[in-house]
Amino acid sequence: MDSIKRIKRELVYTGTILDFYKDTIETPDGHRAEWDFIAHKGAACVVPVLDDGRIIMVRQYRNALDRMTLEVPAGARNNPQEPTSECALREVEEETGYRAGKLEWLLTLRTAIAYCDELIDVYVATELVPTKQHLDEDEFIDVEYYTMDQLVEMILNGTIQDAKTVAALMSYQVKCARREQ
Amino acid sequence: MDSIKRIKRELVYTGTILDFYKDTIETPDGHRAEWDFIAHKGAACVVPVLDDGRIIMVRQYRNALDRMTLEVPAGARNNPQEPTSECALREVEEETGYRAGKLEWLLTLRTAIAYCDELIDVYVATELVPTKQHLDEDEFIDVEYYTMDQLVEMILNGTIQDAKTVAALMSYQVKCARREQ
Repeated sequence: MDSIKRIKRELVYTGTILDFYKDTIETPDGHRAEWDFIAHKGAACVVPVLDDGRIIMVRQYRNALDRMTLEVPAGARNNPQEPTSECALREVEEETGYRAGKLEWLLTLRTAIAYCDELIDVYVATELVPTKQHLDEDEFIDVEYYTMDQLVEMILNGTIQDAKTVAALMSYQVKCARREQ
Repeated sequence: MDSIKRIKRELVYTGTILDFYKDTIETPDGHRAEWDFIAHKGAACVVPVLDDGRIIMVRQYRNALDRMTLEVPAGARNNPQEPTSECALREVEEETGYRAGKLEWLLTLRTAIAYCDELIDVYVATELVPTKQHLDEDEFIDVEYYTMDQLVEMILNGTIQDAKTVAALMSYQVKCARREQ
């Protein structure tokens, strides 16, 4: 299939964590259009599974939605070169106060492919040992504990809406069910 | 819990489909920070299930990743007031060339809650009848057909990374497994 080509990329605004670009694209039949593009340095998120099977979740205020949300622990890389496994280990300990003895890759997600290059690698963390939460000065996070049944119910009734959290938890559920077969 | 407060929101760039804002927030202890905020008009996506259980998927070039991707059909609302069910019915027919006789809400997703208010309502479409693809002039989409087993495999081996697609398909898989129990 002939494909769309990008013929120009112009930086139009530099944000705190994002850069906003104006792209000019050309279709195979010669039509031109301007498309938004947002550059992001990438992130990691973690499904932290306690020895009894419960999942450690974080509740925090999200400015973009102007409300509190319940999510799996996650955070951006310090820079685009940082391995996401290091980012995952740091974020799960900082946000939940548990250090992970074992980390296993579960998924790679692209959060908003219509306009953003953000990548989130998703890991399952086990062998969790309590340490201490270390939050940034603009982070205020509560730690909560749920069974997978409770979380699946909260996703299917619309209580949990965060896409990375839904994708991570439902994929973990499907992967565990496959192993049991 | 005392929470973070937003004390200012300033529009800094108007894109083609997105608006970019600079927010100033204040933490409970008086610390101030600037956070990025992107406004989006919302979208719908669809898991289109044929009578034989196969799923209709779309393959297209994604400028943000500079490659082809395999996704469930989706599209933005015409305006923030458009019901997402109408958007879903329109997009599934435009992108796949099938009209849905039945549409059932599955999930509500927030794609990138660290910085964007985008909402995607996810529907399951059944009773599909072949009609005709109607693509926008800058849309070039191939239609493909997969079993759920094939799609779950492609998610767990990292081939499918689009977060709305992963969240939608894995949630559909979990919901179907629950009904069978």
